[in-house]
Amino acid sequence: MKILVALGGNALGDNPQEQMELVKHAAESVADLVEQGHHVAIVHGNGPQVGMIQSAFETAHDYKQNIPIMLLPECGSMSQGYIGYHLQNAIYNSLASRNIIKDVATIVTQTVVDENDPAFQNPTKPIGKFHTKQEADELRKTIDLPMVEDAGRGYRFVVPSPRPIDIIEKNIIRELLDNDHVVIAAGGGGIPVIKGNTLRGVSAVIDKDFSSAKLAELIKADIFIILTAVKRVSINYNKPNEIEFSKLTIKDAKQYILDGQFGKGSMEPKIVAAISFVEHNKNGQAIIASLEDAALAVKGQAGTIIYE
Amino acid sequence: MKILVALGGNALGDNPQEQMELVKHAAESVADLVEQGHHVAIVHGNGPQVGMIQSAFETAHDYKQNIPIMLLPECGSMSQGYIGYHLQNAIYNSLASRNIIKDVATIVTQTVVDENDPAFQNPTKPIGKFHTKQEADELRKTIDLPMVEDAGRGYRFVVPSPRPIDIIEKNIIRELLDNDHVVIAAGGGGIPVIKGNTLRGVSAVIDKDFSSAKLAELIKADIFIILTAVKRVSINYNKPNEIEFSKLTIKDAKQYILDGQFGKGSMEPKIVAAISFVEHNKNGQAIIASLEDAALAVKGQAGTIIYE
Repeated sequence: MKILVALGGNALGDNPQEQMELVKHAAESVADLVEQGHHVAIVHGNGPQVGMIQSAFETAHDYKQNIPIMLLPECGSMSQGYIGYHLQNAIYNSLASRNIIKDVATIVTQTVVDENDPAFQNPTKPIGKFHTKQEADELRKTIDLPMVEDAGRGYRFVVPSPRPIDIIEKNIIRELLDNDHVVIAAGGGGIPVIKGNTLRGVSAVIDKDFSSAKLAELIKADIFIILTAVKRVSINYNKPNEIEFSKLTIKDAKQYILDGQFGKGSMEPKIVAAISFVEHNKNGQAIIASLEDAALAVKGQAGTIIYE
Repeated sequence: MKILVALGGNALGDNPQEQMELVKHAAESVADLVEQGHHVAIVHGNGPQVGMIQSAFETAHDYKQNIPIMLLPECGSMSQGYIGYHLQNAIYNSLASRNIIKDVATIVTQTVVDENDPAFQNPTKPIGKFHTKQEADELRKTIDLPMVEDAGRGYRFVVPSPRPIDIIEKNIIRELLDNDHVVIAAGGGGIPVIKGNTLRGVSAVIDKDFSSAKLAELIKADIFIILTAVKRVSINYNKPNEIEFSKLTIKDAKQYILDGQFGKGSMEPKIVAAISFVEHNKNGQAIIASLEDAALAVKGQAGTIIYE
């Protein structure tokens, strides 16, 4: 079966040494699926990593003017190379340790967003480091992005978080997957581009759950699995009356969203992404499960299946 | 025909704004070849870019300890994402402006080097920023790389520059090329890895001319073209008795290398790479030409052909 795996960026640590270790867990889960005979594509988040890269350039630029400010599209592209390299290396190694020799590659990916997306009128996602008022005024002379003051801690840039509408490299990703290679793509949700006569990068962040649902839809995945820190989707989370689901209908899931049952920046976008995939691919299956349960979840023995 | 194009990193500028403009020249040359019906893979250098990334992290780490030091394999992977994104974006746009819709993608690439390569006994390539004696002593506690003192300007890390012996992602690159996609790969020569039971990144730099010759050999390119700043290979360079060649036999080229006719860090590795490709692919053709002459050179109307 053709499986798209979405992995959180938070599971990958804050520096290269941590990341090198932590990708091994993800790699084992992916290798489990490959060993079962599945064709696997991986989309990873990049929140902490793209923040680190942006912050490194901002900080270095403050002290050495020959180091340029790096805008988000470029920071995102760097994070795709950085995380992709560690992942493809670890997946190759995990497969090799099982005597499976398989080609694994990261595809630098651009994700199309709509310039009329309402998110562009209302940037909400804070990124990069905190600045003093004076630094903020200075930075705004060269960088055309709004800033917000954050509860006394200083000023930060905020960027829009538009929805993905297409993935430029989808044909290449689908082809590699159909030829039984392991593909890492749309890292961090993909580099956001606006498509007119040309493709133009924009300073924005795309939720990796939404991009992975879009990619799963475009490559016609059989299974779209979002790996996270919890074993199953639940309501009344962390309360005595918590209920875990092994299955959840789209109808119920939508109601629980309206009831505010899921964390806004954590579980809710995962549920929305799962619903979107199933609504677009009637024969596909969406699953939310924990990283270590990937192989069991695909067999229906762990996680939560979201279905029509 | 199947063409591998090698592009210098120096032609890509020192910051993202410059790079975004400069990649357009490279993109036009690649688009010319695609428009002629060729299948094109691109290998780019990354000297200035990987230096900038490494320097940004080193500088930022000096001031903010939560920003980690980035070692060369990771800096190289970031540079592949960063340059690859700009190139694939510009090539897509250049083709679109000619009404050619073509899939273009960057493949994050690992290049195998031999841990017994004599280069590892004798690291010579300075990288990153200059440090004071005190900074150097401090850094050497955490980073296991030799440093050299450079003519009073301070201390710099030096790394080995081993020869490439294999490209891990070669099958994927060849397949995409055979399916008529445009592929960017082995950026900066590729991330150097040592292959034992696993693949392990090492702090080294691989000459992009040598990696591109190796990749051209592995994908069985018909033409391997190295694009540079001069129109043709010449001897007695910049002297009154300078002689430019439209053709050069391997035998003569080897003699001129022994005579020290070519710049050590510039033209010589290009000639060595061209010779290596032709010796491995008897039916292939190696060409050295200027960036803007790519399409003419492939037709035999510009540049220097290196032949057996």
